[in-house]
Amino acid sequence: MSNMLTIVKTTNPKSKPPQNQLGFGKHFSDHMFIMDFDLENGWHSPRIVPYAPIQLDPAAMTLHYSQTVFEGLKAYRTEDGRILLFRPEQNLERLNQSNTRISIPPIPEKDVLEYLKQLIATDHDWVPAAEGTSLYIRPFIIATEPNLRVSPANTYKFLIILSPVGSYYPEGIHPVGIHIEEEYTRAVRGGTGTAKTGGNYSASYKAQEKASAHGQSQVLWLDGVEKKYIEEVGSMNVFFKINGEIVTPALNGSILPGITRKSIIEMLHDWGMPVAERRISIDELCQAYKENTLEEAFGTGTAAVISPIGEFAYNGEQMIINERKTGGLSKKLYDTLTGIQTGKLNDPYGWTIEVK
Amino acid sequence: MSNMLTIVKTTNPKSKPPQNQLGFGKHFSDHMFIMDFDLENGWHSPRIVPYAPIQLDPAAMTLHYSQTVFEGLKAYRTEDGRILLFRPEQNLERLNQSNTRISIPPIPEKDVLEYLKQLIATDHDWVPAAEGTSLYIRPFIIATEPNLRVSPANTYKFLIILSPVGSYYPEGIHPVGIHIEEEYTRAVRGGTGTAKTGGNYSASYKAQEKASAHGQSQVLWLDGVEKKYIEEVGSMNVFFKINGEIVTPALNGSILPGITRKSIIEMLHDWGMPVAERRISIDELCQAYKENTLEEAFGTGTAAVISPIGEFAYNGEQMIINERKTGGLSKKLYDTLTGIQTGKLNDPYGWTIEVK
Ligand SMILES: Cc1ncc(COP(=O)(O)O)c(C=O)c1O
Ligand SMILES: Cc1ncc(COP(=O)(O)O)c(C=O)c1O
Repeated sequence: MSNMLTIVKTTNPKSKPPQNQLGFGKHFSDHMFIMDFDLENGWHSPRIVPYAPIQLDPAAMTLHYSQTVFEGLKAYRTEDGRILLFRPEQNLERLNQSNTRISIPPIPEKDVLEYLKQLIATDHDWVPAAEGTSLYIRPFIIATEPNLRVSPANTYKFLIILSPVGSYYPEGIHPVGIHIEEEYTRAVRGGTGTAKTGGNYSASYKAQEKASAHGQSQVLWLDGVEKKYIEEVGSMNVFFKINGEIVTPALNGSILPGITRKSIIEMLHDWGMPVAERRISIDELCQAYKENTLEEAFGTGTAAVISPIGEFAYNGEQMIINERKTGGLSKKLYDTLTGIQTGKLNDPYGWTIEVK
Repeated sequence: MSNMLTIVKTTNPKSKPPQNQLGFGKHFSDHMFIMDFDLENGWHSPRIVPYAPIQLDPAAMTLHYSQTVFEGLKAYRTEDGRILLFRPEQNLERLNQSNTRISIPPIPEKDVLEYLKQLIATDHDWVPAAEGTSLYIRPFIIATEPNLRVSPANTYKFLIILSPVGSYYPEGIHPVGIHIEEEYTRAVRGGTGTAKTGGNYSASYKAQEKASAHGQSQVLWLDGVEKKYIEEVGSMNVFFKINGEIVTPALNGSILPGITRKSIIEMLHDWGMPVAERRISIDELCQAYKENTLEEAFGTGTAAVISPIGEFAYNGEQMIINERKTGGLSKKLYDTLTGIQTGKLNDPYGWTIEVK
């Protein structure tokens, strides 16, 4: 079994979608990365091949027991045509944390970072250049052993696929409305909330349907135990500015440790604006709203980077934040972080890695 | 798009594994059932085809967000060579309940029952006859649309695969040891515990590893909120006989509503031994043990039917039940239920359906 990366290039390249019609996660590039795991050889046979369907036995364990983990990160095109990755080593580290929780064998992070760079170099002309666009990178692992026993598989596939994605804010950054969910639960301590594993996401669809039915765009999740403490917003971490203090829920064992969250905390610390990572109850939020000290709220994640929140709907009540306008802190964080990611601003933290 | 079942038979039948080496879920029959869903045609193109790998786009949503549900039921060979299904309509009803939770379009239960019977008729010689063996039936649905957005898919596949399985008790029914889990959580109210969806199962592997490391064969799950009330045992519901009273945890919104559980409650009711469905705390269990009133404990599920519990390990303490011997009630329930399932006993409830 070889551990040398092999590359087979497509003889049939696709035509690229127009950069103003990319959307999210619906177009895929010409190539993908695959490697395999079995007990004798560990992770082996890394290869870049044309993007194509994969064959799975109908008894492949991932199709039955959802033994799977994934990541999401982006490559950005700079104004002078270079390609930058944002903190990819953080995503690979988190992938291995997810692996631990879901009993999947760890991947060799350093090797995988090299494979990822090679894949992007191979599909370098798939990194779009228009304002706000990027190449979304989706590494994922699936259990492939054909067996119905309820226990970890002995064989896996690791894949990376690439999707050019459009601007999250084609009309400029703007606040969204959030439905505070009291019935459905995303995650609970002792569960899988800290891992990026498929089951957490399909479990969230019902609540998202409710949010949409209430005319809101995302769900705010409360903790699964007391239904009292704020955890996340949709697939984003969440921050508040209350009476001048910046707060975000502490990583309590059921929240996904976002890399955007981490970066923002580091930036704010650097700016002399420390973030309090602590428990925040929904009552505290309502109280702050009543006292007019709820100054800003925003979600953070790879897809939107910063998503300002203009409204919370809770229990039939409406809380309008900052007159539904993007707050100054949200705007400054968005501009700075996207500036670093796209090479428009200097990167004092060494977060970006160039793909040659 | 047709809704007529088509059948394509294999030209290359497999050799059958010896009936004393079947194990669980590792051998598959010659054929499988597939049908497809899309928005224009609903569920369509039902077909029985040779068992073979399926092709999935690497962006198929089930591989990323685990939008999937499944069922598990059995067909039994009677002594006079007939084939009986046990309450299959219950499994299809539960599949649709799982579908609702995971935002998958409902299947036409009556049609699917006919397709299932046809599939088993096609592979009738795969239903083993040896004592304790059966044909395990695995219907499942996967989201196939190639798209990375976090919301329900627009296309799905429904499959049924068949696996001849060995006796759960090759040396006769015997009690197992159970580890009571305090750290990891299987399910919580508002979560997906009542649905048979993949994410619940891979989420359980870590706790199962702990149970095995402690020399126990299965996990007893406590509720996710207070870590105090008994929910299930491994992939089984659980019953206790305490001071003559038969009790089982009430279906509280995080427990899977087992069909074996339901059948046992109906049988016991019929025998004049009503089952109390209520909350049972781990303290109540420990107390009963101390007072010598914990007479029997057993798990119930399709795989084992009845699995007597001989020991609980909790917090470093050991509770030995009925001197690690199979209790009289467990034995009687096992004999009666397996007797009905295999046609050895009369079926007063109309639970079995013959496949011609
Ligand atoms: C549940 C959840 N929370 C938060 C985040 C934000 O994480 P990151 O900033 O690493 O993208 C994600 C992923 O994007 C997520 O899936
Ligand atoms: C989590 C869980 N609990 C209980 C059961 C028992 O259900 P049934 O009796 O329908 O097999 C199952 C499935 O077998 C299960 O997966």
